[in-house]
Amino acid sequence: MQVADQVAAARAAFYRLATSPEETRNRILLAMAELLGSELEEILAANARDASAAEDSGLAAPLYKRLVLTEAKLRTMADSLRSVAALPDPIGRTELVRELDDGLELRRIRVPIGVIGVVFESRPDALVQIASLALKSGNAVILKGGSEARETNRVLHSLFVRAIAHAELSNALQLVETREQIRTMLELDDQIDLMIPRGSNDLVRFIQQNTRIPVLGHADGLCHLYIHHDADPSMAAAVARDAKTQYPAVCNAIETLLVHEEAAHTLPMLADAMPEVELRGCERTRSRIDALPADENDWRAEYNDLILSVRIVDSLDEAIAHVNRYGSHHTDAIVTSSPEVAERFLREVDSSSVLWNASTRFADGFRYGLGAEVGISTGKVHARGPVGLEGLTTTQYRVIGHGQIVADYAEGRRSFTHRDHA
Amino acid sequence: MQVADQVAAARAAFYRLATSPEETRNRILLAMAELLGSELEEILAANARDASAAEDSGLAAPLYKRLVLTEAKLRTMADSLRSVAALPDPIGRTELVRELDDGLELRRIRVPIGVIGVVFESRPDALVQIASLALKSGNAVILKGGSEARETNRVLHSLFVRAIAHAELSNALQLVETREQIRTMLELDDQIDLMIPRGSNDLVRFIQQNTRIPVLGHADGLCHLYIHHDADPSMAAAVARDAKTQYPAVCNAIETLLVHEEAAHTLPMLADAMPEVELRGCERTRSRIDALPADENDWRAEYNDLILSVRIVDSLDEAIAHVNRYGSHHTDAIVTSSPEVAERFLREVDSSSVLWNASTRFADGFRYGLGAEVGISTGKVHARGPVGLEGLTTTQYRVIGHGQIVADYAEGRRSFTHRDHA
Repeated sequence: MQVADQVAAARAAFYRLATSPEETRNRILLAMAELLGSELEEILAANARDASAAEDSGLAAPLYKRLVLTEAKLRTMADSLRSVAALPDPIGRTELVRELDDGLELRRIRVPIGVIGVVFESRPDALVQIASLALKSGNAVILKGGSEARETNRVLHSLFVRAIAHAELSNALQLVETREQIRTMLELDDQIDLMIPRGSNDLVRFIQQNTRIPVLGHADGLCHLYIHHDADPSMAAAVARDAKTQYPAVCNAIETLLVHEEAAHTLPMLADAMPEVELRGCERTRSRIDALPADENDWRAEYNDLILSVRIVDSLDEAIAHVNRYGSHHTDAIVTSSPEVAERFLREVDSSSVLWNASTRFADGFRYGLGAEVGISTGKVHARGPVGLEGLTTTQYRVIGHGQIVADYAEGRRSFTHRDHA
Repeated sequence: MQVADQVAAARAAFYRLATSPEETRNRILLAMAELLGSELEEILAANARDASAAEDSGLAAPLYKRLVLTEAKLRTMADSLRSVAALPDPIGRTELVRELDDGLELRRIRVPIGVIGVVFESRPDALVQIASLALKSGNAVILKGGSEARETNRVLHSLFVRAIAHAELSNALQLVETREQIRTMLELDDQIDLMIPRGSNDLVRFIQQNTRIPVLGHADGLCHLYIHHDADPSMAAAVARDAKTQYPAVCNAIETLLVHEEAAHTLPMLADAMPEVELRGCERTRSRIDALPADENDWRAEYNDLILSVRIVDSLDEAIAHVNRYGSHHTDAIVTSSPEVAERFLREVDSSSVLWNASTRFADGFRYGLGAEVGISTGKVHARGPVGLEGLTTTQYRVIGHGQIVADYAEGRRSFTHRDHA
């Protein structure tokens, strides 16, 4: 089947899925959780074929590690399916009930978005995770996994189709396999409502730059921690260590530490807190501690590694200006004992998450209690920050009348009451 | 100044405006309302120069009419500024307060979006309307008006800058004048957060197809009314007449009437209700009433005129399928006496507004009680349907802690409580 036909089939199935009862959607997820157990051997055999091909082709070790499934990983995937099934239904909620006039009522309802394109790299568990969130929220989904996981993805997709078990709905989940097919998908901006790339910064940037379909996610995660002069030094050191080293490869780890001039005497203590980290500092930093010289490129670098750039600033204003100028508007934090200083930082830093006296690593759907995470968005429209199921929904206005016509209001025979109901 | 510099200046001003108190933003709108009165002569003189140039160049009559300002129009504009000032502040509202753990709190706050590009055609009142909504919601705005209103737009822009009266904030409002400058704006997808085109379908489509910046609005308004077999015939006729004729040039007027086979005997009455409308029907329609033949192109046509295509369908399913296939997902209505039939139509029609026993013409920010309208969006992400001030805002997560680090949670020493506060 051609990609355009797959997308058309998905859209037709979307209309059925969007209006299906919650139990139907949850039953699919629970059935899939069962199949991950009962068909374990088939899944692991397919995954072994992928793994052996990956070994032959010399796939990089971190990618290989993500590719390989184990019984334990499959159990985690099944648990995650059951927990998504247990989440409250994100669709059908009435957000607003407003009487426009006697006998004329307006409602705003949460509804699914439509057809969502998902592109992910080697990790086959991403297929199950994203597909489950999309189906739970009544959306159809076109999945493009990494070619190195092709066999595994085929089996997982076919099991999902079995779990759906409804001819009319099973087209809601489509699998595509080639890069040319991604190109075609990116052109279908009148058919695909949202793209979600899950993978490297380069993958996200490629999708963002090659489609008019809205993209949910973020390419860069260039996060900062600013230590104000009144910060408790041991709190500053603990937060800096956590934000840099607890998981340096992820988007919400910090890349740059900003330190107020009057707190510069604490730099040796900050450096001692993370001896495994390579420091790159501005000149003033280097007069205080051992560090390689940092230049303009370091303020723009997302190391994703045990490297940290350090800059001394003369004021809160300079710190905020640095973050807004060089950052990726993802997640930034301040350590200070002053509520007024914190308030200014939280208000003036233009990022999806801002934190006071806490590590940037908290910015995450699970830690924020969203139940499940679609991704973290740095876009300013639609959902921003860690995105849960709500980010896979939109709204619809519904008006219920008794034959009302606009002419009566335009010509002054009737007027609006606009009374909201709780 | 180059467009890129104007946009950079607007972004710098945005950071000030976004954190300005509500009174500052309202004071600007009230000052502008005053200036529209005190500087009336200067505005009308500039507008007269535009009007005379437009006459010389033979501008089409409807565009000329929109271009020309009168004292009455300026009074309406001033009233509208005052009413926007009186609306509740759309920014700063706390949407969510959640305890993540003892002493670790998450808040989600409404904040402005950033820099908004607005492109509008001949109507100079659009400048005042959109600028006031953007400033009220703390956003910077780049305005590009029609070249035929250049003199008027220059005066209105300079008065707005006087009304802002704050050197740091006045860059928040930038005027650009040429088509080449629009081209440049459309490239600045890392600097401009949202585009709002206000004008013809062609203008909207041009913007949508030539930028990666998110676009708020809609190109097409191809709306339907479906008459079910159990509809009250006189209600059906009144709603159809209003939806087609009350203002045929606008996006929420209907273009196609779908009639259930068993209600086809009411077609003569429906036609009689709108004698001024040219009807184009399917074959079965033409066996009942006088109508020109309709073909596939008519189901896809947005006439924006006193023309209506009419099609007989055999079932509710066929009506819903027609609307989802040929419509623009804008606004569609049903007349039926059955709540079950209405419920299916409202749930299954994939449009931003759906109405039961009421005219499609109600789909509008003012009639929906939104206070002010930025436009009507048919996009599935961000705001959908008539968009008020809320559509010019986004959210920011703020976390307030006492030095908490993620390692403690990842390593099991602490766990999240995730308790929401009302």
